[in-house]
Amino acid sequence: MYRDKTCGELRLADAGQEVRLAGWVQRIRKMGGMTFIDLRDRYGITQIVFNQEINADLCEAANGLGREYVVEITGKVEERTSKNKNIPTGEIEIIASAVKVLNKSDIPPFTIEDNTDGGDDLRMKYRYLDLRRPCVRKNLELRHRMAFEIRRYLDSKGFLEIETPILVKSTPEGARDFVVPSRMNPGEFYALPQSPQLFKQLLMVSGYDRYFQIAKCFRDEDLRADRQPEFTQVDCEMSFVEQEDVIQMFEGLVKHIFKYVKDIDFADPFPRMTWHDAMRLYGSDKPDIRFGMPFVELTDLVKGKGFAVMDDAELTVGIVANGCAAYTRKQIDQLTDFVKRPQVGAKGLVWVKVEADGSIKSSVGKFFDEEQLRGWASRMGAEAGDLMLIMSGEAMKTRKQLCELRLEMGNRLGLRDKDVFAPLWVVDFPLFEWDEETQRYYAMHHPFTSPNPEDIPLLHSDTGKVRATAYDIVVNGTELGGGSIRIHDSELQDTMFELLGFTPERAREQFGFLMDAFKYGAPPHGGLALGFDRFVSILAGLDTIRDVIAFPKNNSGRDVMNESPSQLEPGQLEELSLRLDLPEK
Amino acid sequence: MYRDKTCGELRLADAGQEVRLAGWVQRIRKMGGMTFIDLRDRYGITQIVFNQEINADLCEAANGLGREYVVEITGKVEERTSKNKNIPTGEIEIIASAVKVLNKSDIPPFTIEDNTDGGDDLRMKYRYLDLRRPCVRKNLELRHRMAFEIRRYLDSKGFLEIETPILVKSTPEGARDFVVPSRMNPGEFYALPQSPQLFKQLLMVSGYDRYFQIAKCFRDEDLRADRQPEFTQVDCEMSFVEQEDVIQMFEGLVKHIFKYVKDIDFADPFPRMTWHDAMRLYGSDKPDIRFGMPFVELTDLVKGKGFAVMDDAELTVGIVANGCAAYTRKQIDQLTDFVKRPQVGAKGLVWVKVEADGSIKSSVGKFFDEEQLRGWASRMGAEAGDLMLIMSGEAMKTRKQLCELRLEMGNRLGLRDKDVFAPLWVVDFPLFEWDEETQRYYAMHHPFTSPNPEDIPLLHSDTGKVRATAYDIVVNGTELGGGSIRIHDSELQDTMFELLGFTPERAREQFGFLMDAFKYGAPPHGGLALGFDRFVSILAGLDTIRDVIAFPKNNSGRDVMNESPSQLEPGQLEELSLRLDLPEK
Repeated sequence: MYRDKTCGELRLADAGQEVRLAGWVQRIRKMGGMTFIDLRDRYGITQIVFNQEINADLCEAANGLGREYVVEITGKVEERTSKNKNIPTGEIEIIASAVKVLNKSDIPPFTIEDNTDGGDDLRMKYRYLDLRRPCVRKNLELRHRMAFEIRRYLDSKGFLEIETPILVKSTPEGARDFVVPSRMNPGEFYALPQSPQLFKQLLMVSGYDRYFQIAKCFRDEDLRADRQPEFTQVDCEMSFVEQEDVIQMFEGLVKHIFKYVKDIDFADPFPRMTWHDAMRLYGSDKPDIRFGMPFVELTDLVKGKGFAVMDDAELTVGIVANGCAAYTRKQIDQLTDFVKRPQVGAKGLVWVKVEADGSIKSSVGKFFDEEQLRGWASRMGAEAGDLMLIMSGEAMKTRKQLCELRLEMGNRLGLRDKDVFAPLWVVDFPLFEWDEETQRYYAMHHPFTSPNPEDIPLLHSDTGKVRATAYDIVVNGTELGGGSIRIHDSELQDTMFELLGFTPERAREQFGFLMDAFKYGAPPHGGLALGFDRFVSILAGLDTIRDVIAFPKNNSGRDVMNESPSQLEPGQLEELSLRLDLPEK
Repeated sequence: MYRDKTCGELRLADAGQEVRLAGWVQRIRKMGGMTFIDLRDRYGITQIVFNQEINADLCEAANGLGREYVVEITGKVEERTSKNKNIPTGEIEIIASAVKVLNKSDIPPFTIEDNTDGGDDLRMKYRYLDLRRPCVRKNLELRHRMAFEIRRYLDSKGFLEIETPILVKSTPEGARDFVVPSRMNPGEFYALPQSPQLFKQLLMVSGYDRYFQIAKCFRDEDLRADRQPEFTQVDCEMSFVEQEDVIQMFEGLVKHIFKYVKDIDFADPFPRMTWHDAMRLYGSDKPDIRFGMPFVELTDLVKGKGFAVMDDAELTVGIVANGCAAYTRKQIDQLTDFVKRPQVGAKGLVWVKVEADGSIKSSVGKFFDEEQLRGWASRMGAEAGDLMLIMSGEAMKTRKQLCELRLEMGNRLGLRDKDVFAPLWVVDFPLFEWDEETQRYYAMHHPFTSPNPEDIPLLHSDTGKVRATAYDIVVNGTELGGGSIRIHDSELQDTMFELLGFTPERAREQFGFLMDAFKYGAPPHGGLALGFDRFVSILAGLDTIRDVIAFPKNNSGRDVMNESPSQLEPGQLEELSLRLDLPEK
C-alpha cells in the first residue's frame, strides 16, 4: 500500500500523527518560503506544506511537481493556523517529511475542476480526465448508491436478481436490434436484447414469482438528443398480481429512493391520470405537473365566426399564462417563433390579453368581438393580468405543439424547479396505435400487454378503443418507467398476434417458444421497468443521462475516447462468413 | 393479488385462518372420498384437501385438475392428523372452500421434480419447465444471494460499482471477440468485451480508487465442456496497492462468502504456492490440494539403465497411491487406458508395487533391479502397501499427463470430497509464454501485467524468465479468479508492447487511448476478477457452470429453447452494409 490514510479523512483529532498519503496534485502555491500543495484523491483534498527554511531540498522537490502528478507524501498532521471551513480536512495540514513521485503528468488539456475550461468534445475525448472532476464523480457515486439501495429494497421484498442473456434471438418488432454474427453458426446472428421482456415472462412461467435485474439493454436507433445505444434499466416482474399490486410495489420503491437520496417524503399516494386526460389536459403522455396551466378546449366557442384558421381546425385549445398580460410585442413574437420552429412545427399562435385594467386585447380582434373573447377568458379562467395562448389544427398535433409551449412557459415563469419533484402514474393507455403509413395497428407497448379485461369484447369490433392494462410512472415531464400486466392466456396471445398482423407461421417462428411456454401453466403476471440512467439523472438534477454514464457514446454512437466502432482485421470478417457491402461514396 | 399467503409460510399457529393461495398443482391423490393436492410455488408446497362428502362439486372440480395447472385456492388452515416432518408446512393443510383455475397446462414433457425423468436435451429445450425444479431454483437463489452479498461486502470496503460499456472497441489480442456491426458507421464494428480490463484501468487513472462490477463478459471460443460464450465475473481494481494488498482484500471476500454461504471458517491465511512449484509438484497451475500425492522426480535415478523410454525422456516423474499395491492387473490396465486416452495423450504408464509384505513388483522389472526400485520407493516415500505410478517424456507434457492421473487417483480414492474446500493462491507466474508455432512471446495474462520489479533488468536479456506480479486464486483444482498489478508507467508499457511484437503504430492504433491516459498521472494499481458462475457452482457443489445460469447455451453456442442464433430478415443485412459469404456445403 502506498498510503495509510486517504486525502479525505484527517481531522483536528489526528494532529501529531505521522501519515502517508497518495494522490494527485490539484494545485501548487508558493508563498514566502513555503510551498503548499492541495493533494486530491476520491475522498477529498488535504493540504501539504513544505518549508524552504526547514528542508530546502524537499521544498525544491515539491516545487518541481506539476498539476496532476501522482505523489506519495509522508509527513505529520498539524493544526492549521488559517483554517478552511469549506472542506472537511480544512482544519489540518501535513508538514511533509518526504515526497515521492509515483507518476508524472503532462499538462492536462483542460482544468480538473467543476468549472472546467474544457468543452464537451474535448472532455469526451479525454473522458478519463473528465471523470476526475468532482461533479462527475459525484454522479457516478450516486449511481452506485442508488443501484445498491434498489437491490437492497427489492431483495427485502423477496425479489430475486436473475441474469438473462445478452446474446439473444432477434425479433424485428419494436426498435431495431443490434446483431452479432455467430462464427460457429455461419449465416446466423444473435441480437442484443432491447429488454429482457421475454425472459422475464418465462421466469414467471418457471415460478420465480418475483424477479428483478439491473439490466443492460440495447437499441440501434438514430440517436436523439438524450438516447444512448446501450442503457440500463431496473427490470422487474411479479406473478399472481394485478395492476394495483405492481403500482403499489414500485411506488414504494420510488418513494424509498427519493427518501434515501433526497430525504423527501411523499406522504400521499402518487396521483394517477388516464392517458386520455393526460393528452387532453397536457398534450403529453408524460405531463410535467410541477405546475398547472392545463389545456382548455375552445373549439365549440370559436367555430363559425369567420376566422378560417379556427373554422377549419379540428381542435382549438389554449393555456393561461398567469400574470403575463404585460408581455411585450417582442416577448410574444419570441413565443410565436418558438412554436414555429421545425421541432414544434405550428403555423402560428393566437394570443388574448386580459389587461390589468380588465380590458381585452388580442391578435384576433378582427374576427372576434370583446364579448366573445370574454367568453373564452371565462371558460379558461383567465383573470385580469393573464395572457391566453391559443392554438388550432389537427387535434393530436395541436396538443403536442401546445404541450411544448406550455413547458416553455413553465421554464420562462420559473415553474420547473429542479428541486421539486412531481411524480404521477399515467394509466389506461390505448392497447393499439394505428399507423397511417402501413395501414395497420401496432402495439403501443408491446405485443404481450394485456387488454383491460372490460375491453376484451371490443378487440375485433373497436380495436382502437381497447385500453391496455399498462401504466407509466412519470416525474417532472420525464418517463421514469412503465409496465403492464401481461397476457398469460395463449388464446388471447394468439388473438393479439393476429390483430398485429402476424401470420400464425410468423408468430410461431418469432415467439414459438413463448407460446409453447404458455401452454404449461403460465401464471397471471405483470411488471415494470424503470430507466435507471434516467432515474439517476433526475435525482442528480441533470438534464442528460450522458452525465451519469461512465463511458457514454455520442450522437453517432461513437466512443470518441477509444475511437470505436472501428474496422476489423481482414481475417475477422472471413471467419464470420461476411463481406462488406458498402454504399458507394 | 391472487393470493394472500404463499405456499411456504403457513404453520400450525395459523390454524383456523381463512387463506387464499395460488400456485401450481404438483400432485393429486384420491384416497377414499378425499382428494389431496400438493400446491407448489417458489416458497414451498402446501397440502390442499377436498372432501367428497362435504362438497361434492368442489371435489369434482379438484379431480378435474391436472399436473402443473395454475390454481387459486381459498380455504381454512387446519392441523393435519398425519403430519409430514419433511416440509416446513407439513403440520397443516388447507380445507378448500373454493378453487379457481387460473391456467391449464398440457402434460409436461418431463416430471417437475429433482429426480426428473427428462434428459439433458429435453430439459434445455423446455428450460422454462426445468427451471421449476427445486434443485435448479436453489442454484439461482444461491446466485442471487451471493451476488448481493459480494456487493454488500465490497460496498462496505469502499468499492464503487461502475458500469462499463458492452459495445466496445475490438482488440484482437487474447481470445476472439464477438463483434457488432454499426449501422450508423458502415463498415465499422463494435466488439463485446472479453473483460472490462481497459475501462477499469482507465477508472484508476480517473481516480476512482476502488472499482468493482459484476460484469458480463464475452468470448467467441470453440466451447469446451464447461465454457459459455457469455459469462459473468466479479471484476475489481484498486489504486495505490501492491500485490499483498489485493490478495488480502480478496482473500477476505472469498472467506466471507464461504462463511456466509457454507458457514465455513478459514482461520489461517490461504496457502500460497509459486507457479513453478505448482507445476513441479502437481503439474498444474491450479492444483487440487484437497489431497497430497505430490509429484516426485526420478529422472536422475532412472537414466542410463538401458530402458529407452526413460533414457530418452526429459523427465521421469511419479506419484504414490497409498494402499493401492493390491490393485489388480485389470485396475492397473484401466489406469493405463486412462492415460492413453486422447484427452490425456500419454504413451504408457510404469508401475511399481511395494507389496504388503515388503516385496517389490513392477512393470519394468526387466530393466531395473530390486535395489534400484527400492531407491525409487525411498525417494518417493512409498511404503508397504503403496503403488507408484510413473510417467516419462517431455517435461511439461508429462507433468500435465501425470496431473490428470493424480486427479483420477484422487477420485478413485475418494479424496476429492465436494464438501471440503481447499483454496490457495498461485503466485509468481511467468510474464511471457513462448509460442513455438508463431515463434514469439505472448503475454501469459495480458499485456498490461506488471513484471516483478526485481526481474525488470531481465526483460530483454532473459525474457522467458521474467516473473509477473500476477496471482490466481484456486479452489479444489479450479481457477476461481486471478489478477495482477498493472503497469502504470507508459515507458514500461511501451517496452511490453514491443516485446509482444506490436509495432509502435499498431500499439497506438489498438491502445493509443490507454497509452495517452497513462501520460496524465496514472496511479500504481492492480486488481482481480473472480469467475462468478464458477464461484456459485463451486459453492453449490456442481461440476458445471451451466447449472447456475438461467438460460445457458449449448456447446455450439445455441440456445435450443428459443433457437438462436437465427437468420436475419433480408433487409437487416442490407441496412448493416453486409453480405453473407457462406462456405459452400
